[in-house]
Amino acid sequence: MTDTYLELVNSGLTKKLAAQLGLPRPARLRRHRPGDPLLDGPALVLGHGPDADAVATLLSSPAGGPAHPHLDDAAPAVLDGWDLDVHRHPAPDVRYAAVVLVLTDLAHPDGLAGPVLAAASTLKRLRPGARVVTVHRPATDADAPAVAAARQGVDGLLRSLAKELRGGATGNGVVVAEGVPVTAPSVVATLRFFLSARSAFVDGQLLEVDSDAGELPADWERPLAGRVAVVTGAARGIGAAIADVLARDGATVVAVDVPAAGEQLAATANRVRGTALQLDVTAPDAGERILAHARARHGRIDVVVHNAGITRDKLLANMTPDRWEPVLAVNVDAPLRINEALLTSGDLVDSPRIVALASTSGIAGNRGQTSYAASKGGVIGMVRATAPLLVPFGGTANAVAPGFIETEMTARIPAVTRQVARRLNSLQQGGLPVDVAEAVAFLASPAAGGVVGRTLRVCGQNMVGR
Amino acid sequence: MTDTYLELVNSGLTKKLAAQLGLPRPARLRRHRPGDPLLDGPALVLGHGPDADAVATLLSSPAGGPAHPHLDDAAPAVLDGWDLDVHRHPAPDVRYAAVVLVLTDLAHPDGLAGPVLAAASTLKRLRPGARVVTVHRPATDADAPAVAAARQGVDGLLRSLAKELRGGATGNGVVVAEGVPVTAPSVVATLRFFLSARSAFVDGQLLEVDSDAGELPADWERPLAGRVAVVTGAARGIGAAIADVLARDGATVVAVDVPAAGEQLAATANRVRGTALQLDVTAPDAGERILAHARARHGRIDVVVHNAGITRDKLLANMTPDRWEPVLAVNVDAPLRINEALLTSGDLVDSPRIVALASTSGIAGNRGQTSYAASKGGVIGMVRATAPLLVPFGGTANAVAPGFIETEMTARIPAVTRQVARRLNSLQQGGLPVDVAEAVAFLASPAAGGVVGRTLRVCGQNMVGR
Repeated sequence: MTDTYLELVNSGLTKKLAAQLGLPRPARLRRHRPGDPLLDGPALVLGHGPDADAVATLLSSPAGGPAHPHLDDAAPAVLDGWDLDVHRHPAPDVRYAAVVLVLTDLAHPDGLAGPVLAAASTLKRLRPGARVVTVHRPATDADAPAVAAARQGVDGLLRSLAKELRGGATGNGVVVAEGVPVTAPSVVATLRFFLSARSAFVDGQLLEVDSDAGELPADWERPLAGRVAVVTGAARGIGAAIADVLARDGATVVAVDVPAAGEQLAATANRVRGTALQLDVTAPDAGERILAHARARHGRIDVVVHNAGITRDKLLANMTPDRWEPVLAVNVDAPLRINEALLTSGDLVDSPRIVALASTSGIAGNRGQTSYAASKGGVIGMVRATAPLLVPFGGTANAVAPGFIETEMTARIPAVTRQVARRLNSLQQGGLPVDVAEAVAFLASPAAGGVVGRTLRVCGQNMVGR
Repeated sequence: MTDTYLELVNSGLTKKLAAQLGLPRPARLRRHRPGDPLLDGPALVLGHGPDADAVATLLSSPAGGPAHPHLDDAAPAVLDGWDLDVHRHPAPDVRYAAVVLVLTDLAHPDGLAGPVLAAASTLKRLRPGARVVTVHRPATDADAPAVAAARQGVDGLLRSLAKELRGGATGNGVVVAEGVPVTAPSVVATLRFFLSARSAFVDGQLLEVDSDAGELPADWERPLAGRVAVVTGAARGIGAAIADVLARDGATVVAVDVPAAGEQLAATANRVRGTALQLDVTAPDAGERILAHARARHGRIDVVVHNAGITRDKLLANMTPDRWEPVLAVNVDAPLRINEALLTSGDLVDSPRIVALASTSGIAGNRGQTSYAASKGGVIGMVRATAPLLVPFGGTANAVAPGFIETEMTARIPAVTRQVARRLNSLQQGGLPVDVAEAVAFLASPAAGGVVGRTLRVCGQNMVGR
């Protein structure tokens, strides 16, 4: 599971050699450690108008400082600023840790040149692990054509820019639905997620914020305080990392896995000071058993992470029912059935969060993975249609779609194929389980209540096609 | 512009050598020649229920034959069947030219196994250039979760399957909006386009049919008969191919290009027996001049193809206004201004069609192409928002997004980069200008009236990421 190549090109003699040979030089990514500052340098906020001013105010206001006029209408927690060193114009020689382009007022593609060229002037001096984040509105069929063109243009721009950044820097965008203020909790939380080290392996992605629902945390280090979260497939790999991160963020975790994984499951549960539930998610009463466990041991259930998943890869030409059916059963039928039980239970009433693991294969397809891709595409459809059912309770359902992640599963891929697969993204490396877990934790948080039925890719901008 | 490698691996000794070495073996693609049959072998229609029956009936009915009960409600032209040899169950040893999976009745991911495994059994014996086409409904947030999961599952399945097909075979899907019958003109026309050799370089794509608007042609070989079509950038490359194909399909073509390209422009116009208009599309009165020319020379204007486009590639870190602005001006500002003139002219009233050239770079981004990607993303937004303005007149606006196409432009890419770029798609080769032109002609046809504001990729399922 170690990326030896990444280690080599970042140390000593081999570092120089790789540079001379023009080999890919994946950077060590900046990852979240509790207590670290949000950014390790100044932030540049580009754009004009009240939205850009509001974002600049948010980023620069001292924690616990006085309300700023642009934020009068915002929720109190928004006023608790982030105390960053914020510039409004690019200063020569400054090495920015973040560049935020607030483009909500775009009315025509001509409007792109100003902020984009200002951002361009900073790119050669970005700090390692820097962040470029756009904030704009979605292009819809209700817009004037020039408005829609400008907005959709940001999409092409951002995805190109993300492919140009180096040194572990990423580019992502917050797409704020018309009518939702840029000070809405989920806009603020998504912006913070993209700026933070928590989004290390999220690159070239645009996340839509659909509503002003959600609630900002009292403490950004403990956004899940007081929440009870169930994680399936938690014995090892990505599931174990999700349990770890949810617990780190303050959640009480119910770790679920099959009885055969009992020992590792107990290890996870002990490590996160949670409880373990041995359960096959395909059991007809899996949902009821999860509910019963959560009620009995923790008195509530707030978050369910559908992480349990399997592959039985085979070219479709050689596919058999015994390979097709288990993949669909575990990866999508089980989450559907468990959700049904949860939704009818009456327990999911306090801003519940369902987060399901999809895959870039479910978006772009993958040779040899028709069954897996069908099941993971299924997950994407499932959360889209489940989310509206939770909105009346302040709830959401969303998915996270990992790309190439360094796990026991990918470690079994033949060496050369693995080396290539790892590099086929803008960060030129595989992600770590913790990267997926951070995205899950973000979508599981009360602050993400305005993100409704979406799928967030954690793939380093994987070149998987579509 | 010749793909020498493709020629070598398809002929003589080098063919054997490539096979022994396990090198990529791109197939010669089946391309449309007037008079050729729709398919060169039997078609298998899988799925149950009235929609599958209707599709099977359409494919099998003799041209001009009697109405079939399942098609009673359909437009007369639908009753003009395609006279294919249609099977409803996979027969052993039959080499199918097409497999159509009609999945409109999917209610749960479990419903996939039956038709998918039936299709799987045919894949090893598909004919060269075969077609796999799915017909299903979009997964929306209004569906029951299991329904949405099943529908979105088709997406992952189809895109995986397309990556597995070989020998020039492709996989594409028609996504039929809820309430639109599978016998609607645009469903029929899209299905025919995907089955035909016209879609040679369209692979792994899903095209939405949004309404039952549109009108099927009296003659499938001349779907643009009686229509006047303007093509910008028509002097050479993709634009010239578009002019050729529109004329072949029966349109009267107005070929537009800058005065500097006058000689080649005249050649195009003469070849297609159309007229030439020397014009810089960025001129403030470009729209008015196009209208005046079309009125004076042809008495009407039905189709406008915004093909003129330029690149000024540069990493954003090195971007300057003189490189950014012309790209946006030609590629998106000009189409916006011309459309404005057309829409306010009162001339676009008889099922008009606007087709604009986007690019996979506008969808997925591309290193070194921030300006181009912003402009082409802009085109995608533009057609989405322009289409609704045309619907009252039976009109549409859509885009075609080419991937790697063999043109003078791509011939200038350094040889090794070009070889790699060419192979990075499921068909392992670059497309030809005619492939883009066929998609444009399809979207320009009266039959495509139910496709509203969409972008169709012509990229061989390019691995460009997103």
